Formats: sequence, C-alpha cells, structure tokens
Amino acid sequence: MSRRRTVSDIGEFGLIEGIKKLAEAHGSNAANARKGIIAGIGDDAAALNLKHIGDRVILFTTDTLAEGVHFRRGWMLPEEIGRKAVEANASDIAAMGGKPLYALVSLAAPSSLEKNVFDGIFRGIVFASEQYKTKIIGGNISRGKEIQITLTLIGAAKKDELCLRSGAKPGDFIFVSRPLGASAAGLGLFSRGIRGFEETKKKFRNPKADFSFSGRLLAAVTSMIDISDGLLGDLGHVCESSKAGATLFTGNIPIDPDALKAAHRLNHDPLDYALHSGEEYALLYTLPEQHLPLAKGFLIGEITRKKGIYLFNNGVRMAVKPKGFDHFLRGKHKGGCHGIVY
Amino acid sequence: MSRRRTVSDIGEFGLIEGIKKLAEAHGSNAANARKGIIAGIGDDAAALNLKHIGDRVILFTTDTLAEGVHFRRGWMLPEEIGRKAVEANASDIAAMGGKPLYALVSLAAPSSLEKNVFDGIFRGIVFASEQYKTKIIGGNISRGKEIQITLTLIGAAKKDELCLRSGAKPGDFIFVSRPLGASAAGLGLFSRGIRGFEETKKKFRNPKADFSFSGRLLAAVTSMIDISDGLLGDLGHVCESSKAGATLFTGNIPIDPDALKAAHRLNHDPLDYALHSGEEYALLYTLPEQHLPLAKGFLIGEITRKKGIYLFNNGVRMAVKPKGFDHFLRGKHKGGCHGIVY
Repeated sequence: MSRRRTVSDIGEFGLIEGIKKLAEAHGSNAANARKGIIAGIGDDAAALNLKHIGDRVILFTTDTLAEGVHFRRGWMLPEEIGRKAVEANASDIAAMGGKPLYALVSLAAPSSLEKNVFDGIFRGIVFASEQYKTKIIGGNISRGKEIQITLTLIGAAKKDELCLRSGAKPGDFIFVSRPLGASAAGLGLFSRGIRGFEETKKKFRNPKADFSFSGRLLAAVTSMIDISDGLLGDLGHVCESSKAGATLFTGNIPIDPDALKAAHRLNHDPLDYALHSGEEYALLYTLPEQHLPLAKGFLIGEITRKKGIYLFNNGVRMAVKPKGFDHFLRGKHKGGCHGIVY
Repeated sequence: MSRRRTVSDIGEFGLIEGIKKLAEAHGSNAANARKGIIAGIGDDAAALNLKHIGDRVILFTTDTLAEGVHFRRGWMLPEEIGRKAVEANASDIAAMGGKPLYALVSLAAPSSLEKNVFDGIFRGIVFASEQYKTKIIGGNISRGKEIQITLTLIGAAKKDELCLRSGAKPGDFIFVSRPLGASAAGLGLFSRGIRGFEETKKKFRNPKADFSFSGRLLAAVTSMIDISDGLLGDLGHVCESSKAGATLFTGNIPIDPDALKAAHRLNHDPLDYALHSGEEYALLYTLPEQHLPLAKGFLIGEITRKKGIYLFNNGVRMAVKPKGFDHFLRGKHKGGCHGIVY
C-alpha cells in the first residue's frame, strides 16, 4: 500500500492554486458571480469595489475552529469541519441582522496533514459558502502544530435591520428561534463513546446558522445574539451590553427532542443542555410587546430593570450565573445555578 | 515566589474586556477616532458605515504568525511578536498601494500562557496599529496548543493608485524599495546562537512595512508585491501573475550592510540572503521607462517577454527557480540557482 499524500507533497502554493480552482468552479464562487471584485485569491490583498452595498452597513466577523477544542477528526468528517467553520461565522452575521458576502480563509496545519483531509476541509468551506452566496476572496495557509481554521466573513445589513446586543429594554420579551440542547447532547454522546443516536450527533456535527428572520422582524428586534456560548452565557452578554437583567420561564425553554432522548440515555438533566449548550447558532432576541405579532420561535422570558438572570419555575425564582463557555475558564468556574433566592 | 498568572486565571471574557480597554485608551484607537464605527469590539460582528471611503477600493488581507514557525519566544519579546503580526499584514496593504484602516485580531493560545506574555502581545498589536491609525474593531480568542495570531486588516486605496501583481509588462524596470537580507541574516544569527550583531537581530525582530511611496509613484507602478517570501519567490509571483519573465542584474541588488556583516560571521553568501530573505517587507515593483524619474529605491532588473527568472552577472546569465518560502515544502525543494544556462 502506498503512503497517503500529505500537504507537504503539494506545497503551499500548489494548495492555494487548488483552492482557487475549487472556489472559482463553484456557483456563487464562479469568477465575477459576486459584484465588485477587482482582485481575489492570489494577490497581496483582495481589492473590492463596494458600491453595490449602497447605504447598507458593512459587517466583519472572525472566528477560529481549533482541533481538539472545537472539533476532533474522529467525530467529524473533514467536510463537516469546513462547513462548521463557515456556519460559526455566518451565525455571527445572522445575529447582526445581515447576510454574508465575502470570506477570507486562514488555515494552519501540520506538514503531515493528509491531502484528502485538507481537500475535504476546503470542500466543506467552499460548499457552505456557496449556499450563502458568499465568495472566497483570499486567505492564508501556514504550518502549525494542529489544524486551526480562522474564517473572516464580510457581510452587510440594512441600516434599520441592524441588530446589536445592546438595545434590550426592561419589559421586552425574550425569544429563542428554535429548540436547544442538541449540540451539547451530541458532544456528550461522542465523549462517552455511545453508539447510535445519529440524529443528535448529526446536529452536533452539522450546526446551521439561522437566516430565517424577515426584514420586518429584524427591524422590530431590540437586541440579538446567536447562541454560541450557551443560552445563559449569551443572555448574559445581552444583559451586560443592555445594562439590564432577565427572567427566564424555565417551562417555556424549548428543548430539542433529540437532546431529550440523548439526555435520558446519558442520565443528564436536559434543561442543563438547553441552558448551556454552545454552538447551537439559534438566535436569541428581544422584542417589545407591540411587535409580538412579528415574533418567530419561542417566548422564554422577559428583560428586567433588576440586574442578574433568574430562572422562574412553578412559583420559585432562582438566581443563576450567566456564565457560558469560556475558553480559558472551562472546568474551573462552571456556570449554572448557585442557589435559590426566593 | 508566587506562581505567575496565566490567561486561565483571567478567562476569555476578562481578556476581551482588557483588550477593549487597551484599544480604546490609545490614540487612534480611542472611541470614535475612526469614522463610521457603529459597533466595535464586543458584539457578534463589527458594524461599519463605510461612506467616508468614498470611491476608494476596499482592501482585505489576512496573515497568521505561528509560534515555532514565524517566531520563537526566546528570540523576540511578546510586544515584538504583536508588532510583527501587524507589520506583516500592513505590508500586504502597502503592496496594494493602500493604507490600513481597521483590524480584526484572532489569538489562539494554551491555557498555560502567562498573562504578561498575552498582555505584551496585545500591547504590540495595539501600539503598531495605532502608528498606522488603524482601529481594532473585533476579533476572537480561543484555546490552542500553540500561540497563533491571525490578523485581518481592512484598508483602502485610491482607484488609480491600486497596485496588483499582474500588471508588469516586458521592458518595465524592476525596483526594490530598500536593501535586503537582514531578516534572514538575523534569523541565521539566532539559529546558531551567535552573540552580538544586535542591529541585524533587531531587523529580524522588528520588521517594518513600507508606506513611503507617493501617490504619483503608486499611480505609475505597473505591478507591486511586498517581499515576504523572498525576492526570487515574490518576483516569481509577479512574473506568474503578469505572464512574463525577468532578468535581475545581480550587482545591483542592494544588500543590507547589517546582513553583510552577519553573513561574514556566518560564512554565508550575502547574495543568497538578499535573494531569499522573507519577511523583509520591502516593496518590489515594476515601472515603465517613461516614469523612471518617479522611481524610489534600487533598480535591480527588467521584465522580459521570455518566461523564467535569470540572474545576470559579469556577462554570465543564469536561470534560477523562483521558489521562495513555502510553508510545506521547506527543506524539501530548496529554492536557488539550478545551473548556468549561458
């Protein structure tokens, strides 16, 4: 059996040439499919004429997927890893009320990385970008001890549809766009090596950003964030930015049926998954009462003048720490309930 | 003696808060010092109104610095590492004929990273950005096995001053903006553990992008690239993009005096440093004869219709491979001269 080809058999510039061809061959990535590109992959910088953006607001976001932290090759196909890198970043654009337009892709990998793994990751990135009509305009490839994918997405939002974290007002209702918990439940299944539960695992492996909101809803929303650090963590970010607090009605928090099944098997509280599962990419948003008819998803609570986050269940109110996933504190200060208040 | 504080004592969100404060406290990074920022650090994405760009072209570039590949902590101070990350990216903007405006900073680091090293790297990034009046608008922090800094710079160039790699024409003269070789020579000194030669080492540790070109020169330039892969490698990129060849007059290639001194000590051919030293961030550009009065730097050769790169010295012409630094081929196919042609 012959040795599998690695990226070091192709070289940096051969790899870039391959990416360029793949990106140019695909639909919205085809040459000139996106307006305004003066120079794309293969120059020192990409050069764009952004006149077609008009008076829309330009959005920039960047997010890294690191091997061993955000994915393991044993759990996900290379193409899924690439797709997840795009979805994680697209979700940040969705959370601003915008649409992605262009992408820069940086990949660090060891020289020993198999060429077919490299190709798979890039196929995932190109295919997921294509689905969002997002054009890859440049990037960087370098050596590193582990695989790290850093995507930068450039998007745009209409001025009156831009959604920041900071606009939530006391009395606003809190919504989440879809049921939660499957990502953490899927991770739990993989971590414990449990067979089956393919639907739950699929939700962990193939997360999707949520671009389902209408312009009217986006215009009415007072604050928005995507759930990437966990419901409590991200609600904490909204509350901090908006200088407010929140009460969640525990019974109203929608739990993904696949998360429920897995939680039963794993002997884990499904509500804990729903409160802390990151990488859900559901949208968490606030809406004033007069715009309730526009709401999408599930009403889960209310913004309060009183600071802090409280869970309300069967007449019992409990203060919770808004801690979500923290890259460096993980396992040190675990978020969660820290006592009944009244 | 108490244990030194690490990033895991502060946590991801504490670190982001610290970066935000540092960035906002500094000159051009002070709040609203850059026009058009609707949302900066601390939301899902940065939101900008780019009306002040007018009809300029927008530039995007991204580059990664990885520990062990681009820097070693034993050789450079944390602040120098941060500065180098900015200069490497700024140089790509300079090579397009533009100026940087905004930056996104992604850092991956192990939990054990000392807080003062983290702070030093960010001070370097903030201070170097400030010098270019570039505002940090967002980024990402995640765990990783090694330190990796990925910067994305957003810049702008006047339409008629935009310089691509692809415009070189046969007959154009080839120029380099300043003497070469000190970066590779400095690296050689560090690698061999040689004391002294501080000036040479300083050039390796503190590379600088070159923004010294006037608008008139930029408008006259037919192609441009920054020397990050080595003179031959980057000239190769220009030739490939421009579908042309080049002849370099070996005697005209300016060698940095500090590279010369170090080469003597290291018993290394100084011309080899000048031809292959990456991370020089000097500008390599082509200029048609009628614009020679605008030229800056050193005339080192000519673009030819005949493909391939040739060195011309004392009546001898030698074909060279245009290979520069390749992250994955390094040490496998070494660039350089491969035979006398005539």
